[in-house]
Amino acid sequence: MAISLHRNVREIFDAGLKAADPGQAIKRAVKHGKDGELIVGGRKYKLNQFNRIVVVGAGKAASPMAVAIEDILGSYLSEGAITTKYGHGLSLKVISLTEAGHPVPDEAGLAGTEHILKLLHETKENDLIFCLISGGGSALMPLPVPGLTLEDKQKTTEELLACGAAIHEINAIRKHISAIKGGKLAKAAYPGTLITLILSDVIGDDLDVIASGPTVPDKSTFADCAAILEKYNITERVPPEVAAYIERGNAGLEPETSKPGDPIFDKAQAVIVGSASLSIDAAGKKAIQLGYNTLILSTLIEGETREVAKVHTAIIREILKSGNPVTRPACIISGGETTVTIHGNGLGGRNTEFVLAAAIEISGLDDVIILSGGTDGTDGPTDAAGAVADGTTLSRALEKGYSAAEYLKNNDSYHFFEATGDLLKTGPTMTNVMDLRILLVGDSN
Amino acid sequence: MAISLHRNVREIFDAGLKAADPGQAIKRAVKHGKDGELIVGGRKYKLNQFNRIVVVGAGKAASPMAVAIEDILGSYLSEGAITTKYGHGLSLKVISLTEAGHPVPDEAGLAGTEHILKLLHETKENDLIFCLISGGGSALMPLPVPGLTLEDKQKTTEELLACGAAIHEINAIRKHISAIKGGKLAKAAYPGTLITLILSDVIGDDLDVIASGPTVPDKSTFADCAAILEKYNITERVPPEVAAYIERGNAGLEPETSKPGDPIFDKAQAVIVGSASLSIDAAGKKAIQLGYNTLILSTLIEGETREVAKVHTAIIREILKSGNPVTRPACIISGGETTVTIHGNGLGGRNTEFVLAAAIEISGLDDVIILSGGTDGTDGPTDAAGAVADGTTLSRALEKGYSAAEYLKNNDSYHFFEATGDLLKTGPTMTNVMDLRILLVGDSN
Repeated sequence: MAISLHRNVREIFDAGLKAADPGQAIKRAVKHGKDGELIVGGRKYKLNQFNRIVVVGAGKAASPMAVAIEDILGSYLSEGAITTKYGHGLSLKVISLTEAGHPVPDEAGLAGTEHILKLLHETKENDLIFCLISGGGSALMPLPVPGLTLEDKQKTTEELLACGAAIHEINAIRKHISAIKGGKLAKAAYPGTLITLILSDVIGDDLDVIASGPTVPDKSTFADCAAILEKYNITERVPPEVAAYIERGNAGLEPETSKPGDPIFDKAQAVIVGSASLSIDAAGKKAIQLGYNTLILSTLIEGETREVAKVHTAIIREILKSGNPVTRPACIISGGETTVTIHGNGLGGRNTEFVLAAAIEISGLDDVIILSGGTDGTDGPTDAAGAVADGTTLSRALEKGYSAAEYLKNNDSYHFFEATGDLLKTGPTMTNVMDLRILLVGDSN
Repeated sequence: MAISLHRNVREIFDAGLKAADPGQAIKRAVKHGKDGELIVGGRKYKLNQFNRIVVVGAGKAASPMAVAIEDILGSYLSEGAITTKYGHGLSLKVISLTEAGHPVPDEAGLAGTEHILKLLHETKENDLIFCLISGGGSALMPLPVPGLTLEDKQKTTEELLACGAAIHEINAIRKHISAIKGGKLAKAAYPGTLITLILSDVIGDDLDVIASGPTVPDKSTFADCAAILEKYNITERVPPEVAAYIERGNAGLEPETSKPGDPIFDKAQAVIVGSASLSIDAAGKKAIQLGYNTLILSTLIEGETREVAKVHTAIIREILKSGNPVTRPACIISGGETTVTIHGNGLGGRNTEFVLAAAIEISGLDDVIILSGGTDGTDGPTDAAGAVADGTTLSRALEKGYSAAEYLKNNDSYHFFEATGDLLKTGPTMTNVMDLRILLVGDSN
């Protein structure tokens, strides 16, 4: 049983990873119909009715998404421009590639964004625009409104973070001082038809949060922005050009972000092609197929990693004790991203720390296995995606002189699992739909 | 909907409380059959076949349990002796009552235990012994082996805690230097028939942990005890009488605790009459009856309260987002006992802190309500059992000038909910099966 639990937990994780693969996600979401039709999000697009088909986008997964869309569009594709992180570029046939700075935006990112807007500037009624968005899209597609610099934007964000502004308040201001966020890319693509394909790395998949929503409506206003500066008393602390721009906007002298109901969105749709939810659904389907009674706990898990681990293992122990919340053989899956408060100076990430904390709680239990892995394949500053543990992990480690409690205390989960041989390694996956945690309880016989 | 959610969450909590009521728990577990038969744990006992029926026991709920058993046994009851905490005594007809110190054992507790052993000393083949055990039973039923004092036991426990010994190691030694724990009460009740009725306040309901298992087998040995003293190098630190006693025991010169398979357990059974699991089952049944798709998450929840709250609310948000892990109207129930790391100087307990942390996460959500309450009716050092919150709690508080984040930071959840009027008050319940957390998500219409 232990052997098949180990094999199954990896199969279930791999099913989740596969669903998050950028190329596969695009190909699952964009299907060929008959007569050169494309079907996306339930809508049909006759490719030969479009005059010009353009692909733009940004994000850490922009390259493999672009490879897939080039493959799908073939000779229908007119031109395109995407921006990805340094070292993340793949060879493309038609679409022009820019590599740029992430997480700190740089001049290369600015140039890439200007290139994108230049392509869209010529958009006509009969054009079809694909916009490919993935994690990191915000930093990789920077463009302050005329008169402001990247430094102005960055200084503004720093002040907002320092004064304790809420994330939706920070986003409201960032969208208003950007020439591309808050629906402004959609405005540039008007009056063409716009299809946004999104690989979401944001908890909850809010479209206006992912990459600051370049192609979706923004509800916030210049009046909100002015009120936020006043609320936190930072009008004097942000760069004077930013304060002046917001003041002019509030007086109706600068263009608002695009609001819900704006006709520019009439021919636009945004489709999430990959996300924590989609990966967890795929993992769940695999688990059911393997015969496990499967419970998807939540895709939205946050909180201090080792405490979150305790709640997960409390569910494991309840399954063993009473058959609640599901009977054996059982599979519990959760997603989202936890946090680690650093107390020591060891090496590890959220996922290896989760598995180490969980290993302590399940030590000695039979027929239990726990896996936690980052779908990007790199857990924190390590070359592992995560780790796997069962009821024997602690005693196997102890035989080699490794104390789980000590290593957890020192946030040194990577070295602990390196010693036990339980690191989970996938290599970089070029995608990110946050973490997958999979807990199996086998049959008792 | 909001009104019925509020009513329902309280009805579900009350169903859980009712199942933990000591008197009701006894009466549910000990049923009259026909012809003066009692049915307990599936076994039948013909009362008129017994020569003498005796009730002993200890714990904070010993009094109401004794009232119920007196009521059930009526004139069959010969005599009895129980010990409860100061101020927890109720008037009894036949059973003699001792009030004693808790959590620190005192001379009154010693005298009560001696009284119990004296009653059992005369046990014959045809006697029936009821032993009533509830939370606090270990401190309330103290009796060191001859030659050791209460102070010796206490000093030993302190040294074991200080050196970082595991709880099962501490228990092994405590059982061996006790004249009543580790199955020794069962030995005293031999060759009579023994029925132990247990109201469990221990996570996982391990019978040999509850009140240090006076009526159940103990697997640990004097050899284990000697190894523990050596492992932590505290042979010189515990009182010399304790070290000497364990050394003599290890040499076979003192009586071992009663081991599994010992014939003294042949006519003994132990029944859990109340526990977190039983209360949560009752709460779950009520929720199902009220029409909620109900998921019992775990009765074994531990961890830092505010982080545990985040996992619970992540499940709430997932239900709203995707219908996982259960569809609306949904009820999630969990039990167990979390911990609070104190950072501030406010007033509150685990339950009010849980609800405050959860309230922050669900602020603004419709059709959601969260209750957490201690089944003992007193959450930490307060007169409330817990609190209730919904999506409006934070804004209602803010109108009165109360910031949830500030009050959480200061561990001042009691005053926060006192201000919003959302404290949950039951009064002391004389029982304890830990905490109940109930989360409801109503229908969307």
